[in-house]
Amino acid sequence: MKQHTPRLFLDDLAPGLSFRSGTVDVTADEIRSFAGQFDPQPFHLDDAAAHATLFGGLAASGWHTAALTMRLIVESLPFDGGLIGTHCELAWPLPTRPGDRLHVEGEIVEISPSRSKPDRGIVVMRSRTINQDDGIVQTLTASLLVFRRPATDTV
Amino acid sequence: MKQHTPRLFLDDLAPGLSFRSGTVDVTADEIRSFAGQFDPQPFHLDDAAAHATLFGGLAASGWHTAALTMRLIVESLPFDGGLIGTHCELAWPLPTRPGDRLHVEGEIVEISPSRSKPDRGIVVMRSRTINQDDGIVQTLTASLLVFRRPATDTV
Repeated sequence: MKQHTPRLFLDDLAPGLSFRSGTVDVTADEIRSFAGQFDPQPFHLDDAAAHATLFGGLAASGWHTAALTMRLIVESLPFDGGLIGTHCELAWPLPTRPGDRLHVEGEIVEISPSRSKPDRGIVVMRSRTINQDDGIVQTLTASLLVFRRPATDTV
Repeated sequence: MKQHTPRLFLDDLAPGLSFRSGTVDVTADEIRSFAGQFDPQPFHLDDAAAHATLFGGLAASGWHTAALTMRLIVESLPFDGGLIGTHCELAWPLPTRPGDRLHVEGEIVEISPSRSKPDRGIVVMRSRTINQDDGIVQTLTASLLVFRRPATDTV
């Protein structure tokens, strides 16, 4: 017998559908490692240097928060064909800090079947990435390409 | 004698000011490594699996393209106080592929001095991340917090 992971298609989604992800713990080492590769600025690399900045202490790159958010969403939404973003809007109301435990709460806000390609549609998803103190470290509104269930597909 | 890296303040910027970054080369190993940490989907992890998907071959996570773009911008714009984004809009017209050489072209489109905090303002920057074939792999419009030159500052 073959095991199946449940897969989600456009047909399974509706505006208002919401989800809550698992959690991820963020360490100072991970913050510094990501920043060293992609965002080498003092407030993302060094706690002492960060104290003299707007952040007042070590803070993760916003792109690190975005990447961690992606992992939490990928683990939560098993879209058939994958989670493929075409464009998005992002904001970082608060920084992610060492020791933070993040999770994502999201919902489907809009579904637009493609007019030219009947096998797919665009889903607008809105999410908040939230720390252990209920602080919002990221808001994301993303347009995702999602496929319809093929006519021949058996669930 | 102390060496200074030239620093940019709000006072040094004007709408229309443009920049071109250095380049970064993207390898298949880096694409898989980033995806393994942050975006574990078949088309970002495995070339053979990716061939059966919309991407038709290994493609970088959009968040990897965004993170690489950040590094290129950080290296190009030495804002005093750092490059601090508050929110942004992103799109990925084409995927980043193994072997791509990316650079960023950007410009300042708007400057709004803060009304409540006279030491700073918000700068809107628009950028394109471009591969070796002049293909645009990312567009980004970001709002950045930038500080004014302090009255006591000597250049």
